[in-house]
Amino acid sequence: MKIKIITPIVIKSFRFDREEYARRIKRLSGLCEDTEVEFESIKRGPTSIESKYDEVLACPDIMRLIKEAEEDGYDAVVVNCFGDPGVMAGRELVKIPVVGPGEASMLVASSLCHKFSVVTVLKNVVPLIEENAKIYGIYSKLASVRSIDIPVLELHADEERTVKALAEEGRIALEEDGAELLILGCTGMTGLAQRLSELLDVIVIDPLPTALKFAESLVKLGLSHSKRGFPPPPKKERII
Amino acid sequence: MKIKIITPIVIKSFRFDREEYARRIKRLSGLCEDTEVEFESIKRGPTSIESKYDEVLACPDIMRLIKEAEEDGYDAVVVNCFGDPGVMAGRELVKIPVVGPGEASMLVASSLCHKFSVVTVLKNVVPLIEENAKIYGIYSKLASVRSIDIPVLELHADEERTVKALAEEGRIALEEDGAELLILGCTGMTGLAQRLSELLDVIVIDPLPTALKFAESLVKLGLSHSKRGFPPPPKKERII
Amino acid sequence: MKIKIITPIVIKSFRFDREEYARRIKRLSGLCEDTEVEFESIKRGPTSIESKYDEVLACPDIMRLIKEAEEDGYDAVVVNCFGDPGVMAGRELVKIPVVGPGEASMLVASSLCHKFSVVTVLKNVVPLIEENAKIYGIYSKLASVRSIDIPVLELHADEERTVKALAEEGRIALEEDGAELLILGCTGMTGLAQRLSELLDVIVIDPLPTALKFAESLVKLGLSHSKRGFPPPPKKERII
Amino acid sequence: MKIKIITPIVIKSFRFDREEYARRIKRLSGLCEDTEVEFESIKRGPTSIESKYDEVLACPDIMRLIKEAEEDGYDAVVVNCFGDPGVMAGRELVKIPVVGPGEASMLVASSLCHKFSVVTVLKNVVPLIEENAKIYGIYSKLASVRSIDIPVLELHADEERTVKALAEEGRIALEEDGAELLILGCTGMTGLAQRLSELLDVIVIDPLPTALKFAESLVKLGLSHSKRGFPPPPKKERII
Amino acid sequence: MKIKIITPIVIKSFRFDREEYARRIKRLSGLCEDTEVEFESIKRGPTSIESKYDEVLACPDIMRLIKEAEEDGYDAVVVNCFGDPGVMAGRELVKIPVVGPGEASMLVASSLCHKFSVVTVLKNVVPLIEENAKIYGIYSKLASVRSIDIPVLELHADEERTVKALAEEGRIALEEDGAELLILGCTGMTGLAQRLSELLDVIVIDPLPTALKFAESLVKLGLSHSKRGFPPPPKKERII
Amino acid sequence: MKIKIITPIVIKSFRFDREEYARRIKRLSGLCEDTEVEFESIKRGPTSIESKYDEVLACPDIMRLIKEAEEDGYDAVVVNCFGDPGVMAGRELVKIPVVGPGEASMLVASSLCHKFSVVTVLKNVVPLIEENAKIYGIYSKLASVRSIDIPVLELHADEERTVKALAEEGRIALEEDGAELLILGCTGMTGLAQRLSELLDVIVIDPLPTALKFAESLVKLGLSHSKRGFPPPPKKERII
Repeated sequence: MKIKIITPIVIKSFRFDREEYARRIKRLSGLCEDTEVEFESIKRGPTSIESKYDEVLACPDIMRLIKEAEEDGYDAVVVNCFGDPGVMAGRELVKIPVVGPGEASMLVASSLCHKFSVVTVLKNVVPLIEENAKIYGIYSKLASVRSIDIPVLELHADEERTVKALAEEGRIALEEDGAELLILGCTGMTGLAQRLSELLDVIVIDPLPTALKFAESLVKLGLSHSKRGFPPPPKKERII
Repeated sequence: MKIKIITPIVIKSFRFDREEYARRIKRLSGLCEDTEVEFESIKRGPTSIESKYDEVLACPDIMRLIKEAEEDGYDAVVVNCFGDPGVMAGRELVKIPVVGPGEASMLVASSLCHKFSVVTVLKNVVPLIEENAKIYGIYSKLASVRSIDIPVLELHADEERTVKALAEEGRIALEEDGAELLILGCTGMTGLAQRLSELLDVIVIDPLPTALKFAESLVKLGLSHSKRGFPPPPKKERII
Repeated sequence: MKIKIITPIVIKSFRFDREEYARRIKRLSGLCEDTEVEFESIKRGPTSIESKYDEVLACPDIMRLIKEAEEDGYDAVVVNCFGDPGVMAGRELVKIPVVGPGEASMLVASSLCHKFSVVTVLKNVVPLIEENAKIYGIYSKLASVRSIDIPVLELHADEERTVKALAEEGRIALEEDGAELLILGCTGMTGLAQRLSELLDVIVIDPLPTALKFAESLVKLGLSHSKRGFPPPPKKERII
Repeated sequence: MKIKIITPIVIKSFRFDREEYARRIKRLSGLCEDTEVEFESIKRGPTSIESKYDEVLACPDIMRLIKEAEEDGYDAVVVNCFGDPGVMAGRELVKIPVVGPGEASMLVASSLCHKFSVVTVLKNVVPLIEENAKIYGIYSKLASVRSIDIPVLELHADEERTVKALAEEGRIALEEDGAELLILGCTGMTGLAQRLSELLDVIVIDPLPTALKFAESLVKLGLSHSKRGFPPPPKKERII
Repeated sequence: MKIKIITPIVIKSFRFDREEYARRIKRLSGLCEDTEVEFESIKRGPTSIESKYDEVLACPDIMRLIKEAEEDGYDAVVVNCFGDPGVMAGRELVKIPVVGPGEASMLVASSLCHKFSVVTVLKNVVPLIEENAKIYGIYSKLASVRSIDIPVLELHADEERTVKALAEEGRIALEEDGAELLILGCTGMTGLAQRLSELLDVIVIDPLPTALKFAESLVKLGLSHSKRGFPPPPKKERII
Repeated sequence: MKIKIITPIVIKSFRFDREEYARRIKRLSGLCEDTEVEFESIKRGPTSIESKYDEVLACPDIMRLIKEAEEDGYDAVVVNCFGDPGVMAGRELVKIPVVGPGEASMLVASSLCHKFSVVTVLKNVVPLIEENAKIYGIYSKLASVRSIDIPVLELHADEERTVKALAEEGRIALEEDGAELLILGCTGMTGLAQRLSELLDVIVIDPLPTALKFAESLVKLGLSHSKRGFPPPPKKERII
């Protein structure tokens, strides 16, 4: 099985060794031995996604990569951003599962607690995540969306600071908002779940690994999104 | 006052005389004498919007036109499509009101009846409109979204057929779904409200005129969207 | 166009010069040049509306004025109270639009932000406003209803105190309740929106002007409430 | 214990012997031996309630009777109309329980089934009942509100016809709307529950008896509405 | 009339004189003179109910007692626990009303205020009560569920401490959560309502008496749960 | 990895060869090579689950098996029934994931369509499944629950009849209820998904395999239910 991870940002310089990073992600996701993951990022769009505007700029190239993934024989696609940009639109274009980390982790969280909170980067994206929760149908299980006021591209500049900020907001979510579980609200935070979990003694969901495992499960179960719900766009001229 | 109408499709050949069309729209909208409206359409994107995919392709150029409208001194922007593509994202970029015909007409409808239905073009866009109603917060007033199975670009090929199909679906909405009022679910249907209203003896909302009048009202009242809710996207590199 | 503003209280002595007040309201509302507004108040009822009981006492005479407005050729009616007393019942009696400032401003607010709060006079009317939001179908966008504990008839005794109290509650709404926009929750506060807006740097909706402009827009668009939803009361004897 | 039943209509000629009717109602309600019920009707208002307008006209005199009931030592008040006109407002005026047949029967129904339907007189009052269900907080248990198109004052002109019409609409509610229980949607139908129940083999709630027993229970339990939620209207001049 | 109260715990040593306790409960409930109540407790199960696990262990023997109650000619059954264990299942087995104190008191509370809170024993049962409120359909009227961190079996070890803890949490519910009325969230607290009510000057609902009076009312009205909604379990082998 | 499948019924004679059945289930579930599944059924309880009563009887022994599974080193537990009996209670007892096929398949379905329907055995269990959907928080995505009127133990007596009945109800769900995807509403239907899918050309979710894969994914991701949400039951005496 091959899963394509589409990172919906223009990456100027990659922080990690690509192959090592893929191995690490695969390990975090607990994927089956014979499942391959490959990362690809868009060529046109923002360098991080922190607004509806960023999503809008990233989406056309996400469409291209989703279509290519199916043509290239990938079994599933994961869009590597918690806001799930282009996931709904992309499902119209292909038959293979298109999975969003926001949706996958919120659904998995729903099965593990009565109420969960999301801790994300900037205040700007809070309404966006709340709207997604409404559309995904699990808004009643969302205790709150909190933000740490650190932009995506600075999350790893000082990991201590990031983890500390996550712990602070996470603690409020648990103590005041009634959350019983936390979700990292940005796939740029991938890998920080375990430390946060230990600090707060609570289950923390890492959205990218969760989405990958969710996608792999769909393939193994022979499931994909309903084409009745996501029919192919009518044929007509489109100037891209 | 000047309102820019952004038509989010690539128009290959315009059906009408532009100025006459603007006059007609202005009359349908009941705009004040001294309000000017100007149409502009995108350069890259689909030739009609009938899927999430079409929306995604149209959005980047809508962003450009929204920004230009503010820079050019327009007082408000209306995106000329019932799905309101790019409206939320566009609000992040400017301070002038950005109005969507879907949202404006559903809110106005809410104040005129207990339950309303939308009659749109293709089945494909039904979930999209329902999701918008959820995000706009007035889903509980939506009786149903029905479709007439005629693509946008064929709506005016045989207007008799279109009106007849609207009347058929509209009648079911009134009699079976509990609707007390109808909304035309595509701005390509602009101008057909009156005939449908007479056929079914029911209030019918024409979304583009309603959005224009709504936008003009906001300007007159000195209102616009909250920048706390739609903050400017953080500064950073974006490859467009 | 002529709009009748029905003030649903018995006015013992009018604070302002009537004509000057009408001009001021017209200016705040941004009405078209040729739109005339006329105020009329009820003869029997309370001297302010601060309870369901007050609403109940005011309603019969509101009915009379709504019917007279249509007979006298008015194009629309606005009931000058945030609780919208008699608006639903009045729609059964006439074909011209009957607009409530509470409903109009909450619907307009819905299109300008993700969540808004209402700041009203007394705690007594908080449930009344929340119930209206439920019936109007936009309860999910209401962050909170807060009160300043100043009765209607004292709002202008010390405007500084009133504005200060509005700012205090408004700030809590913005900072703790998640509101992105405020609505003045009493038409007795008409004219205070701008100062509050400047103090808190947030959009503030003034409900009476918003309702007037909303009513004018409906007339210009040729729209009114659905008679299917608000059918005329059956004919029979009524002892009034 | 003494319960006052306020009939919110002007009764021109009473169909029944008053005392016999009171005994019959008491029997239907299963009241305790020593509970007295007394009927009183309003002096100004409509001759039946079939619209919001009718409610509005009836309410001021209902207020008077509610206040008098408390002054006269009654232990509770029931407003004899399924629309519960004046119930919320009346609670502001007194400390004794003010019970509405609509609310009481919908709450009792909630405890007896998963979904119930209301069968009422005219289509006009359907939205009114649905709005009440929203405010009462049990809208999710309401399968449907159906009407038999017979005005209140004709319900007993041909009881066979009324029962037959109730059975027809009731059957649709059970078979198509998913109702498991029916509520008579007008206190003018009092006494018809048993026949309908036998015809359709389903539990049928008779709202006036249910409200009376509910009111008696509140008194016996020492309960009444919260004065925090229904505070006394502020003192001020009111021209009645 | 005879009502069976099923206490769903194994009672090792009864705190009170049984007959005196029954008289006290009858008085608190305001039951009619000729209504008899009898207590019976399960033989297998937990010694108190403070988790879903406890409910699960108690339920089979509750089923047995519910069936026996009907066979023995009882007119109604009340399950003596705020979590209403076995109430839904028990309704499938009998035609007589099976009433739960949680459901009965939340429905009665709904009719007495806009929002109420429940104050219960341990944090463990908070989600359980919230889930019940969702199923009962009145979740929108629930302001909060708060807990005092005192186990059921220690409630009466130091009644002063219990009442003080109830007052503390109750005060927060009233002041911060918007509650207008309180419900004791454990039938082990029976009898403490009046003191709490006096301390906080608010209506407090005692769930067991409320359930008993509710059950008696159903019998007097000739009502019971719908067998369409709670059909008898299909016949088949069951190893008990 | 080892997953215990707890079948919550007393099995008198097993239809299949146990090991072959386990292999088949493993294949349907697409489990990893090295994941072992083992079936165990309860000793006391019903022979099928078709009512709340059946659930109640099955639950105590399910508790025992869940505890034993953890003690025996299993990594996760799946309760083999669509109604998810004992799943919530069982989570209080252990730290390993306890997965219900109803919850897992409804959550997975939520990510694959806008609206789905469940097709189950008897009408009796329809409210039970709807209540679960409310508690799981995804009720807004449930188009309908339909039943085929064939008891669990007769599902395989005539598989043609069963598949035909599923197709009939499934078709109505797709055409009239707005479903875009179907879920088999009974784990006794395991293995019939593919045929139904082919007949109706729609995605069909088989709940037991979906739950197994879901459970395996949780283990691989290092996730389990929140102990803050499902705390261990307080220690005390319980007579089992």
